[in-house]
Amino acid sequence: MSSDWLKYSDMIQYEALYKISYGLYIVGSGTKEQGNAYISNTVFQVSSDPPRFATCCSKDNHTIDLIQSSGHFSVSVLDEDTGKELIGAFGYKSGKDANKFDGMDVSYGHTGVPVVQNNAIAFLEVRVEETIDVGSHLMFIGELVRAELLDAEADPLTYLHYRKTKKGVAPKNAPTYIDRSKLEKKSGATEYAQYKCPTCGYIYDEEKEGVKFDELPDDWECPICGEKKSEFMKL
Amino acid sequence: MSSDWLKYSDMIQYEALYKISYGLYIVGSGTKEQGNAYISNTVFQVSSDPPRFATCCSKDNHTIDLIQSSGHFSVSVLDEDTGKELIGAFGYKSGKDANKFDGMDVSYGHTGVPVVQNNAIAFLEVRVEETIDVGSHLMFIGELVRAELLDAEADPLTYLHYRKTKKGVAPKNAPTYIDRSKLEKKSGATEYAQYKCPTCGYIYDEEKEGVKFDELPDDWECPICGEKKSEFMKL
Repeated sequence: MSSDWLKYSDMIQYEALYKISYGLYIVGSGTKEQGNAYISNTVFQVSSDPPRFATCCSKDNHTIDLIQSSGHFSVSVLDEDTGKELIGAFGYKSGKDANKFDGMDVSYGHTGVPVVQNNAIAFLEVRVEETIDVGSHLMFIGELVRAELLDAEADPLTYLHYRKTKKGVAPKNAPTYIDRSKLEKKSGATEYAQYKCPTCGYIYDEEKEGVKFDELPDDWECPICGEKKSEFMKL
Repeated sequence: MSSDWLKYSDMIQYEALYKISYGLYIVGSGTKEQGNAYISNTVFQVSSDPPRFATCCSKDNHTIDLIQSSGHFSVSVLDEDTGKELIGAFGYKSGKDANKFDGMDVSYGHTGVPVVQNNAIAFLEVRVEETIDVGSHLMFIGELVRAELLDAEADPLTYLHYRKTKKGVAPKNAPTYIDRSKLEKKSGATEYAQYKCPTCGYIYDEEKEGVKFDELPDDWECPICGEKKSEFMKL
């Protein structure tokens, strides 16, 4: 697909995109020997008969190779009370650098893929039938093989809830991640800085996040370890 | 795509699918001369750079031809207070039988497509780049051409909120519609009946909905006109 993005960008108000609703899920793939999982906000049913699901995965994501080689993925639906530690563990680290399953409650599905059970209220297994290149991401579309409800009462965590109550920001591999610096650069030079969490070493990069550190709410916390904003050090 | 649905159906707990989060939108297409729109719960960003969106449209849906001929669609994001009358007007009627825009607040976008403004808190225009056959539905994927925020404060209507507070059920053209009667038939004969709303004529078809009328909550109301469940007549 070719892109006319910059041609259109004057007509795009990015705040409007925050009004699109998403859940928050852990998408897993691979095998018992080699598995990985990541946080995704794009999991959706695309067809009713038969039930088919789609998900999008960043081309930079370690799990993308596992979905392509195994031909299956799992989806764990997170409950509304999921802590940011779990989101941080699966969303802001790469499976290339660390085994994300260490210390986690992981089972293996009918199709052999890992299914993260921490805070899961339901899970799915999907057999990939088609892969579409949509630019920064691949979209995997496949038939629902298995769906299990674990907690009928709990409400699912939504992206809106996460952003509102946990002050979460999208990891840079999310389809909804907006590198607003690109657009800001069009209207003149802007200076960006980085801020480091003294507790876990997480680096907040204004240019990548598209939001100045000073503009984050006072009760914003480190998305990895929960350290206070006031403790961050400018680099 | 071929389907092994019935092979898998014993492993599918349909209640689990209700834990997947969606918004509720009005998707419009066509032109000023010939336009239509329908209720959709599947609108999502699939790529961040450039921003691309996808939506799914039932093959039975009148708007599908308009998206294919115009090559564009609009998305109106509905606010949480949207009444079921608006959902009913766009979701349970076909544009083949009536002009859904009669009495509605409709503008025409940069790409010429109709954009429904009633209860809209934001809207998008998308230029279709790829069309994927996913079975009962077509998935349209395209580049974001325009995004406009109309109400920064209002929360968007979610499918969960609609089902919980408005007792809404999915129209049969939604990707999330589950014809559970198909599965029930496997385990023996079930008798289905139809119930008619005396006010607007809407027919509740147990077989299509997959839920017996008696099993609907007492405060369930006609999805078109809001008439009480107790007023419905068995046909």
